[in-house]
Amino acid sequence: MANDHPNQILAPRWLIPVAPRDEVLEDHAVWIRDGRIEAILTREQARERQRATEEPVDWVDLPSHALIPGLVNGHTHAAMSLMRGLADDLPLMTWLEEHIWPVEGQMLGHDFVRDGTMLAAVEMIRSGTTTLSDMYFFPEAAIEAVQAAGLRGIFGIVVIDNPNPWSANAEEALAKGVELVNDWRHHSRIEFTLAPHAPYTVGDAALERVRTMSDQLDLPVHMHVHETAHEVKSTLAATGERPLARLDRLGLLNERLVAVHMTQLTEAEIARLAVTGTHVLHSPQSNLKLASGFCPVAKLLEAGVNVGLGTDGAASNNDLDMLDEMRTAALIAKPVANDAAAVSAHQALHMATLGSARAFGLDDRIGSIEPGKQADLVAVDLDAPETQPVYDAVSTLVYSASRAQVSDVWVDGRALLRHGQLRGLDSRAIIERANTWREPIRRAKPAV
Amino acid sequence: MANDHPNQILAPRWLIPVAPRDEVLEDHAVWIRDGRIEAILTREQARERQRATEEPVDWVDLPSHALIPGLVNGHTHAAMSLMRGLADDLPLMTWLEEHIWPVEGQMLGHDFVRDGTMLAAVEMIRSGTTTLSDMYFFPEAAIEAVQAAGLRGIFGIVVIDNPNPWSANAEEALAKGVELVNDWRHHSRIEFTLAPHAPYTVGDAALERVRTMSDQLDLPVHMHVHETAHEVKSTLAATGERPLARLDRLGLLNERLVAVHMTQLTEAEIARLAVTGTHVLHSPQSNLKLASGFCPVAKLLEAGVNVGLGTDGAASNNDLDMLDEMRTAALIAKPVANDAAAVSAHQALHMATLGSARAFGLDDRIGSIEPGKQADLVAVDLDAPETQPVYDAVSTLVYSASRAQVSDVWVDGRALLRHGQLRGLDSRAIIERANTWREPIRRAKPAV
Repeated sequence: MANDHPNQILAPRWLIPVAPRDEVLEDHAVWIRDGRIEAILTREQARERQRATEEPVDWVDLPSHALIPGLVNGHTHAAMSLMRGLADDLPLMTWLEEHIWPVEGQMLGHDFVRDGTMLAAVEMIRSGTTTLSDMYFFPEAAIEAVQAAGLRGIFGIVVIDNPNPWSANAEEALAKGVELVNDWRHHSRIEFTLAPHAPYTVGDAALERVRTMSDQLDLPVHMHVHETAHEVKSTLAATGERPLARLDRLGLLNERLVAVHMTQLTEAEIARLAVTGTHVLHSPQSNLKLASGFCPVAKLLEAGVNVGLGTDGAASNNDLDMLDEMRTAALIAKPVANDAAAVSAHQALHMATLGSARAFGLDDRIGSIEPGKQADLVAVDLDAPETQPVYDAVSTLVYSASRAQVSDVWVDGRALLRHGQLRGLDSRAIIERANTWREPIRRAKPAV
Repeated sequence: MANDHPNQILAPRWLIPVAPRDEVLEDHAVWIRDGRIEAILTREQARERQRATEEPVDWVDLPSHALIPGLVNGHTHAAMSLMRGLADDLPLMTWLEEHIWPVEGQMLGHDFVRDGTMLAAVEMIRSGTTTLSDMYFFPEAAIEAVQAAGLRGIFGIVVIDNPNPWSANAEEALAKGVELVNDWRHHSRIEFTLAPHAPYTVGDAALERVRTMSDQLDLPVHMHVHETAHEVKSTLAATGERPLARLDRLGLLNERLVAVHMTQLTEAEIARLAVTGTHVLHSPQSNLKLASGFCPVAKLLEAGVNVGLGTDGAASNNDLDMLDEMRTAALIAKPVANDAAAVSAHQALHMATLGSARAFGLDDRIGSIEPGKQADLVAVDLDAPETQPVYDAVSTLVYSASRAQVSDVWVDGRALLRHGQLRGLDSRAIIERANTWREPIRRAKPAV
């Protein structure tokens, strides 16, 4: 798909580049050329450049908007949007074993994943997400949806020892994964991870294969780790080893591992994450909703661990709203650290952009508004009673703005949303298609 | 101001009455007559009644909407919206002593409170709040704004020993309060509370006066209590008594007290609250943002304590969005109780409606959709990609819906919002007026 125009100048009220940290520029503009950020200029410089260039340039005024890097949802199961609100107010293992897994066992397939991911894509675009790191079965179907939507996607090759609708075992999953990685090698908006589900569903043999493949193919490993106290306690009781220690023994703690959730961490484990360069992917709303616990984000940041942010699937959140997730991350960090200055609005925005991008090795291409990076950009209109007055645009964005204020979204310089309207996607048809799954899913859900 | 029409039938897709608990009605309608709920009928019965009656009746179709009782924001400082985002990521006492109080000392007055409350009123209407319980200086100015907006308001007579721009001491505050209560005695949408600020700002003499006046005038007492561990520890160290024990000794623990925040509670204190009929007003986002701690809501509910919900002021939240506050209340209760079933979506909605109404003694008039109650009603349109599919409308409302989906708001049967548009308020003018305070406030803020 072509860009709207190879040359655009976006001139927002507030330009929030994320790198350098804590900066908010006024009277500045972003020059986009061929899908990339060509330069950040003062408004005056931008007008001069526009006059001087012979190529046509679109000038996009964003008079009451904050312009931020596209949000990077570092952990989701996009297709689970079809199960949004199916089984709420239940603990993780009950929720998984008695509700989600039985439904998945009966329903999962290519169409389910494509239709669910399509619904998720619409929600993500409308709330300012430009990249998702997905972890779900039938990634080829998710890719189909993400490609159609124009988003950037990082797709997990889900590895589970037990048979599931997508793979008979870890071996088959990895074989399918290699094929997918090869098929999409030359596509700029499609990336992959190896995604062993969790320490308690993947044995040593498969994890060793994952580590080797991660090295050989230079792929990140995206995995749920230390999600609950139960996970850690039961493993420790059964094996004498905490799950994170086991991953360390298997050579998995390194700069390629993105460990999701991490609500149970000792000081020594935090130090080990920092030394090994392991990334933590924080999903606070899911941790709260499933009563999983609190990830010690302030401590991790202080130790120098890179932390990204993600929503988890909509079945345990129940939305894919990264603005809301940033707010929750900034709010919950404070009582957990017993420090109201812990995880500022600026730090929450950093986690949701550059933090997530870095976790998956994409921080050279996305995550901040810097020359040379892809033009994945989001405008949020702060001219609403809920977000006035503005004293600090980042505070307003994180603590007060809502997804409905996301007005414009660009990926590779191409507009997916303009003035709050989707471009090129028919959300009515996508909602209706998603709703054809509702009754079958409800029927498949066991009566507990 | 007149009602739109004395007779209306609202026919939503989902009717959520809150009482009885956990009920969701489909194919039902609410008959409104002269500002009150006349009856809840099946859709068929409603059509028959419409045909049979000789009076004109407006039929209002809400085909993809949840209809809920108007949300009751049980604790706010509405005018502080002018200071939204002024001083974020700071602990309570730093925030108060070094930022908020100095600005208030210089700026507070009738116009400040009227303009700030007007901005708050617009935000509240747009997010489905129909009643606010306010606690701020110059309540007469807040009343002016709330009256103009058409909302229902409960106004705290703020009692503080030290001089402030509104009162020289507690005595003067109470005298002004008696006058206000008398002036507004016969107005149906204006109620009052006595609002001693906090145990650490009001001495025994004033609290005894408050208790006597509360008895004599039958007024609730609205007070910050046990907001932080510091409050409790420092008082205990200085006096040998916890603040709640002191209030108990002064006779204030009773069914008229609405104790706000309550993040520090022993089992014995919880039992004492239950026995005395004391109400707790939960403001989770403010508690998180100021790192104040966690109110043990699940334990309180289990003990039979009535719990209401409020946003606190926008300077410590930073919005007045009760939908978002319900979500936070439901989410945070789970890890605090170590139980993913704690505080369900239904319970969160109950807190935000009937719980808050009951705290202030208004549960015979508002807080649920029941015949005889005032027609304070809110429609939320769930037909959006973010809130589909719907398996349980209350789950969708609490965990997935956002304020932008609030489409219609009625107070006493009069529409304040229709199809997402304000009726009778000029939000552009209100925002502009609020913004005239921005630079003076910024200048008044001490450089710390």
